Amino acid sequence: MELTVRTSKPYDILIERGSLRTIGARCAALFPAGAKAAVVSDSSVFPLYGETVTGSLRAAGFAPASFVFPAGESSKTLATVSGLLGFLAEQGLTRSDFVVALGGGVTGDMAGFAAACYLRGIRFVQVPTSLLAQVDSSVGGKTAVDLPQGKNLAGAFHQPAFVLIDPDTLATLPPLFFADGMGEVIKYGCIRRADLFRTLETAGDAAPLMEEILFSCVDCKREVVEHDEFDTGERLILNFGHTLGHALEKAHGYTGLTHGAAVGIGMVLISRLGEHMGLTEPGTAGRIAAVLRRWNLPVEDPMAQGESLDRVIGATALDKKGLGGDLRIVLVHRIGESFVHRLPRAQFAALCRETFLPAGEAGVR
Amino acid sequence: MELTVRTSKPYDILIERGSLRTIGARCAALFPAGAKAAVVSDSSVFPLYGETVTGSLRAAGFAPASFVFPAGESSKTLATVSGLLGFLAEQGLTRSDFVVALGGGVTGDMAGFAAACYLRGIRFVQVPTSLLAQVDSSVGGKTAVDLPQGKNLAGAFHQPAFVLIDPDTLATLPPLFFADGMGEVIKYGCIRRADLFRTLETAGDAAPLMEEILFSCVDCKREVVEHDEFDTGERLILNFGHTLGHALEKAHGYTGLTHGAAVGIGMVLISRLGEHMGLTEPGTAGRIAAVLRRWNLPVEDPMAQGESLDRVIGATALDKKGLGGDLRIVLVHRIGESFVHRLPRAQFAALCRETFLPAGEAGVR
Repeated sequence: MELTVRTSKPYDILIERGSLRTIGARCAALFPAGAKAAVVSDSSVFPLYGETVTGSLRAAGFAPASFVFPAGESSKTLATVSGLLGFLAEQGLTRSDFVVALGGGVTGDMAGFAAACYLRGIRFVQVPTSLLAQVDSSVGGKTAVDLPQGKNLAGAFHQPAFVLIDPDTLATLPPLFFADGMGEVIKYGCIRRADLFRTLETAGDAAPLMEEILFSCVDCKREVVEHDEFDTGERLILNFGHTLGHALEKAHGYTGLTHGAAVGIGMVLISRLGEHMGLTEPGTAGRIAAVLRRWNLPVEDPMAQGESLDRVIGATALDKKGLGGDLRIVLVHRIGESFVHRLPRAQFAALCRETFLPAGEAGVR
Repeated sequence: MELTVRTSKPYDILIERGSLRTIGARCAALFPAGAKAAVVSDSSVFPLYGETVTGSLRAAGFAPASFVFPAGESSKTLATVSGLLGFLAEQGLTRSDFVVALGGGVTGDMAGFAAACYLRGIRFVQVPTSLLAQVDSSVGGKTAVDLPQGKNLAGAFHQPAFVLIDPDTLATLPPLFFADGMGEVIKYGCIRRADLFRTLETAGDAAPLMEEILFSCVDCKREVVEHDEFDTGERLILNFGHTLGHALEKAHGYTGLTHGAAVGIGMVLISRLGEHMGLTEPGTAGRIAAVLRRWNLPVEDPMAQGESLDRVIGATALDKKGLGGDLRIVLVHRIGESFVHRLPRAQFAALCRETFLPAGEAGVR
């Protein structure tokens, strides 16, 4: 399956089992013969797929060189990017050469950011190998690193030249990471793909449906990104569950709760809020919680209760989507129909406390 | 004098004596009331103009905060940008807030790059206080930092929201830095502004002509940048004198020869080459050399001779504008008429050696 994202620089996305070993031929249609290819990957993914990718590139006449960094979100820093930029310069890459991001979200975000900065922008190919990266971070051109003050605070919009998604790579993904990605998959169902949501409510095993699920998610993201490449409006709906989800992840110090799990809990909470405000169809939060459980994702969390939750609510004040004193949250009218709702931060906090914290607990803070 | 640059995001440039103290009012037309303004400046410029700028911003209802770094090119690194990004996050800037780059090229390049990266891009105002920054780096949206492997190797295209040029700031510029800027001023005369070149050939004192000179240069850069915002073609003519100039600067370890001086020598050399190739009107290199001398710029350099020059010629192989094996050099047919000439790197090196190195010396390498 193939689709085209029509952003300022259009690009294709291929979703195909076994496509990893065809990457060289695919790139031959995009880059000059003999071009250098910097393959960026982490210490978990490179041993699994590095040789397949560099071998395919070499066979197609490219000159691959590899940059491998320690796996994990703690590598997603300016320090790693600095090392990567130095590597690209040492290898003498020019604007005719390209970067290949082979791995999960950390790899794609960081390699994409380095490609955006190096010589003020060279082209790069996304080869996402985790479910989260395949359905979310590899499409849309958002690249970033974390700062000590918060996640994804420094980055660039830099669309890939091509995205190659090989569902077979999910076979090596640990179950926890698979569930992590399912959080975002369920999100697409909630915001715009009611049919996908119904599939997820009833399907037993994901494996035979994987290509279809990936296509549905990527196509949804494509649609939203095409309308709002630079994240000034509609793209915000992709953040369904993220306002409180991010704050929860942060409260956990980004350990102990995966992104997908945090977003899942965030979706349940914000839908409870939407129901409380009379903006979301009653029972929606319950339906979302049921699907999350079905796909091995938590629906509650110790940090999402009592005093901890109170602090999490307070932390949403530093959200980077902030527009002055107002907060824009994403709600669903019903499964598959999302919208942006703008309200003062103080009012959001008050409504959250009213909805989630029993009267006794609310008095504690 | 005011002009508008019609890039993807159009912006105005104001050239006006004494305009520094009006920055607050000017920004009030662009940014929301109460917005945070991160004023980025270096240890030489901030003591001179920091209070004027922050005071004017405060009076206009903004909330200024200052980030001051040690003056000099050695600060133009990812490490300084990392500190600056942390500062922006600590101060809690959002996408409604803005950065003010107050200083020379290092400040503008680095603050612009940080503004491009922070939250994937917030707006920034260029307030160039050196001649080089006023006529060159503050206009056109190129931002960058140096890597250990070379200058400006990491950066972004990020157009400013506004450029404020106050010619009065040149009064505090040391003579060496003034001459530095004149190198680029003369370049504009060579590539597209024959009238400016004639003015520079005859004028005695620059002071009374400064606004006119600045306007001519900025207008020339505007014209070129509008046609080629992302540096894929025509913009290359701005690099007249830069191919060998950059290599000379590098040979000096970026000390002992200013950018303007290096570009000046580069313009003389490349014009001698053009004359040798029969592409440049005879006598052009001599005219350029005479104007450079008139404005206190060197026309030769120990590194531009013999074995050193031989190495400098070799170093042009790592030019980031490289298109595979070919090099694109900028030549003038005659003063005011420039063009891009593409030739194999090996041929360029051979022609340079033929032109600059007497037979005996050429055999040395």
